[in-house]
Amino acid sequence: MGNTGCVGAYVAGGGEFKRDTNYITTRITADGADGYPVEPGRYRLIVARACPWANRAIIVRRLLGLEDVLSIGFCGPTHDSRSWTFDLDPGGVDPVLKIPRLQDAYFARFPDYSKGITVPAIVEVGTGQVVTNDFAQMTLDFSTEWSAYHRQGAPQLYPEPLRDEIDEVAQRIYSEVNNGVYRCGFAGSQESYEAAYDRLFAALDWLTERLADRRYLVGDTITEADVRLFTTLARFDPVYHGHFKCNRAKLSEMPVLWAYARDLFQTPGFGDTTDFVQIKQHYYIVHADINPTRIVPKGPNLSGWLTPHGRESLGGRPFGDGTPPGPTREGETVPAGHGAG
Amino acid sequence: MGNTGCVGAYVAGGGEFKRDTNYITTRITADGADGYPVEPGRYRLIVARACPWANRAIIVRRLLGLEDVLSIGFCGPTHDSRSWTFDLDPGGVDPVLKIPRLQDAYFARFPDYSKGITVPAIVEVGTGQVVTNDFAQMTLDFSTEWSAYHRQGAPQLYPEPLRDEIDEVAQRIYSEVNNGVYRCGFAGSQESYEAAYDRLFAALDWLTERLADRRYLVGDTITEADVRLFTTLARFDPVYHGHFKCNRAKLSEMPVLWAYARDLFQTPGFGDTTDFVQIKQHYYIVHADINPTRIVPKGPNLSGWLTPHGRESLGGRPFGDGTPPGPTREGETVPAGHGAG
Repeated sequence: MGNTGCVGAYVAGGGEFKRDTNYITTRITADGADGYPVEPGRYRLIVARACPWANRAIIVRRLLGLEDVLSIGFCGPTHDSRSWTFDLDPGGVDPVLKIPRLQDAYFARFPDYSKGITVPAIVEVGTGQVVTNDFAQMTLDFSTEWSAYHRQGAPQLYPEPLRDEIDEVAQRIYSEVNNGVYRCGFAGSQESYEAAYDRLFAALDWLTERLADRRYLVGDTITEADVRLFTTLARFDPVYHGHFKCNRAKLSEMPVLWAYARDLFQTPGFGDTTDFVQIKQHYYIVHADINPTRIVPKGPNLSGWLTPHGRESLGGRPFGDGTPPGPTREGETVPAGHGAG
Repeated sequence: MGNTGCVGAYVAGGGEFKRDTNYITTRITADGADGYPVEPGRYRLIVARACPWANRAIIVRRLLGLEDVLSIGFCGPTHDSRSWTFDLDPGGVDPVLKIPRLQDAYFARFPDYSKGITVPAIVEVGTGQVVTNDFAQMTLDFSTEWSAYHRQGAPQLYPEPLRDEIDEVAQRIYSEVNNGVYRCGFAGSQESYEAAYDRLFAALDWLTERLADRRYLVGDTITEADVRLFTTLARFDPVYHGHFKCNRAKLSEMPVLWAYARDLFQTPGFGDTTDFVQIKQHYYIVHADINPTRIVPKGPNLSGWLTPHGRESLGGRPFGDGTPPGPTREGETVPAGHGAG
């Protein structure tokens, strides 16, 4: 079990896929209650663009404008049994942490760490120790605990009056969609796969109904809930539809969800953090038990992501009283040819 | 090599997929030149509904109305290393040939037969010996050699004035499309896969152009060329798109080809001989080297096959001066729930 990447860990054979939800729950907070206070330059966010859970953190950090206070390191899309590496960096070493493998930061804090080495993770630069890999809490804390360092015009992704509704929607999205696609792909039997497929598409039908006449999931602006749904939708046609057999229809054949996903994709922070090449490489090369040839599909044609979505007519104000983020920082842009179109 | 089913045989590892084209080329002809004259009741056609090459023979036999003179036996969709079996029949034995495995008919004629045990095959009932498994010649001979036994109103699927054009189009469809999808799925390297993918979709672009303003591939009626293209198109979204990574787009996302395929599907002889359940089971269960879990996808939703196609406006006369075939014979119908919709 464990370190199969992203927040990996799946049961082999026979049963239903169960995600290992045993994370390092230390929090970085404004009051430093866990010993890790919010502080500019003190921490480094480690991600892989391929991973949907890490993609959330990339999006939220950019939407809130935390680039100057929380640096970022990118692992490559694939990894071996010793998990994520910095193979994209010169010399195969993270330029700040000076380590070749993310596991080094885990072992620096817990020498006998035996659970999954997962992204996203936040590492304390001075000690080289991992602080947290609790992806669900991480982005909420970006919104609430790091607010003193948000850029001017940062959106309210987790506004207080809407938290109950966001939590409720996000919980259903997590269990039924974000994790639902993995439940299909890692099912250990025909029976558990079919149950997972029905459950996934029932949730997509619910979302279709919810989004038919409202632009965003909760309220009339982008929130944490939209970020969470987006990263799964972006991977749907390139990976989940074929690799995980989530194939009742492609996202591009579900008009409401496809327009909703394109609307977000075309919003700064979403599409410009999505690397379709790394996404496909990650799943098709790492999961050799599903794809033993490790051949990565050349399709699908992704140019449709840039077509008009028509969702403006539903109203809504993407950034509420705020503004979109500026251009992606140098060194953090998705490589040319890795995006849509 | 050999007996991997259908007309199987593929190269493992490294190279480009090459089909074993070494068939038993004995022909059943009107003049009996090879010792096997056309004769009602003398032969039995053995097929598997799953197999695109066998599906051709099922379609042509039905379009021409050869049911009363050439009986048919159905192998199940899956098989082991000893190839096709009659596991769908009571007792697992073909009711006419009284054999459990198709290979028994091959060995009856060639005791040391070492090439692929493939469907479609025609077996001489009296001797229990296979006569031919040359699928390409087989359907042409149904049109030309068995003409004395065609039903009244049978279409001209291989009309003399159009043979050169049909041969030319059919050759390109064979090498680029029928076989092209296998070249993608069985590619032994990323490089050979990508070359195969480009080659396949270049051919589909050519067909899109050709079919944009003409209803059928050659002339203004259904011909052998349409039969040959149809069986690959019918398998495209259920199998080739995901399993063989032919995923630039689904058939249902290619408007011209999708309308053309639906037009044929809704024509007696085509859709009513297509068994989507067996098709999916065959590929996903037999090719464990591509799909080691052997889990069969539940999708795609196939109800679109029955929607209006609008191709009537292009003109054309499906059966020329002939008529459509009547209802499918008892015992030869696709099981309920195995079709579209």
